[in-house]
Amino acid sequence: MAKVDIGRKILGANEVYAQKNRELLAQIKKPCFNIISSPGSGKTTILVRTINDLAGSLRVGVIEGDIQTDIDAERIRAAKAPAIQINTQGACHLSAAQVNQALEKLPLDSLDIVFIENVGNLVCPSAFELGETGKIVVLSVAEGDDKPAKYPAIFAKSKVLLVNKIDLLAGALVDFDLDRVRMDARRLNKDISIFPVSARTGEGMQNWYAWLTDQIRASR
Amino acid sequence: MAKVDIGRKILGANEVYAQKNRELLAQIKKPCFNIISSPGSGKTTILVRTINDLAGSLRVGVIEGDIQTDIDAERIRAAKAPAIQINTQGACHLSAAQVNQALEKLPLDSLDIVFIENVGNLVCPSAFELGETGKIVVLSVAEGDDKPAKYPAIFAKSKVLLVNKIDLLAGALVDFDLDRVRMDARRLNKDISIFPVSARTGEGMQNWYAWLTDQIRASR
Repeated sequence: MAKVDIGRKILGANEVYAQKNRELLAQIKKPCFNIISSPGSGKTTILVRTINDLAGSLRVGVIEGDIQTDIDAERIRAAKAPAIQINTQGACHLSAAQVNQALEKLPLDSLDIVFIENVGNLVCPSAFELGETGKIVVLSVAEGDDKPAKYPAIFAKSKVLLVNKIDLLAGALVDFDLDRVRMDARRLNKDISIFPVSARTGEGMQNWYAWLTDQIRASR
Repeated sequence: MAKVDIGRKILGANEVYAQKNRELLAQIKKPCFNIISSPGSGKTTILVRTINDLAGSLRVGVIEGDIQTDIDAERIRAAKAPAIQINTQGACHLSAAQVNQALEKLPLDSLDIVFIENVGNLVCPSAFELGETGKIVVLSVAEGDDKPAKYPAIFAKSKVLLVNKIDLLAGALVDFDLDRVRMDARRLNKDISIFPVSARTGEGMQNWYAWLTDQIRASR
């Protein structure tokens, strides 16, 4: 029982900052999406391609969460978007307080949208609200089609599921049943939007961009 | 500071059971490896292939950690090895107490080795000692070659790194520099053994089997 109480206290302290972030984002009328996946599903590559493909029409800012290194923030900056790196020093998820500090450092007035790239972890980040407009879960086809069944929390809470690396499906190099993923994800979350994409080849990315553009319109 | 204290208490309670497991394994003189990776790196597929390829010479028992479902335990049982499923109900790692209960349920007398397949998570399981003989980290090439740098703890603590899905390197479908992984992993842990494998095609698995066989000999 002690374990549950401890968890509640940590989540309660987090909620104070989540609410601050929610109020700030509502005030400036800009959407902010919290991207969650296992390590290596392609979160940063999706962001870099999105920034490049929509350069000139969408001004993106990124909050990068990593345990160590600023590898990901450097990749975002190379695509000419502002990025604030948060190193969690071992912690398995971003907290709302960390995001609150990072939001203050971003040039919000000159942005259309903020992405939070969470620490690579399909489990823990789903339990910590950051005050975001919504969560985006990324699943690479190389990870297998049983992941919504085995890691249900994040699929139940996300607005969008990006099924990435679909270029690997050609040649039957990986066993992945997209229909099974669709069915399992929709059973957990009937409203989730599912876009199969390849951030490497660009396949399917237009559907993701159309959804994003619509979200920006809706938040104004 | 409160956060650190809470963490210490949880880890302290865990250590009591880790020590019990250590003593049990020393008494029966059988090795027990804790396999840790992101979701979908191929832990279960590696185990199933190992069980099948070494059938007749190596008797394997498996403790399966998953947040939900018994999909993985069923895969192990289909390969005719005993498997005890632990569902963590949301928790992001196995505890030593859970492993202690599962060890009691396995037919240890008729086994040569026990594998613990931890919850798919490259971060949290590395902080919880289970009393295991050693940790094995699995990294799929689809996850990218920056993972030892970005998630150093588990690479620093493991006896073996299995670089899985090397069949995907053919045709340059994924960008992955094996030398970078070797260099970064060895910088964290000069004693780590690194075996590039494909559990799908069987490539490189003989090196892993040779290492395992040697470990069993050493523990007798």
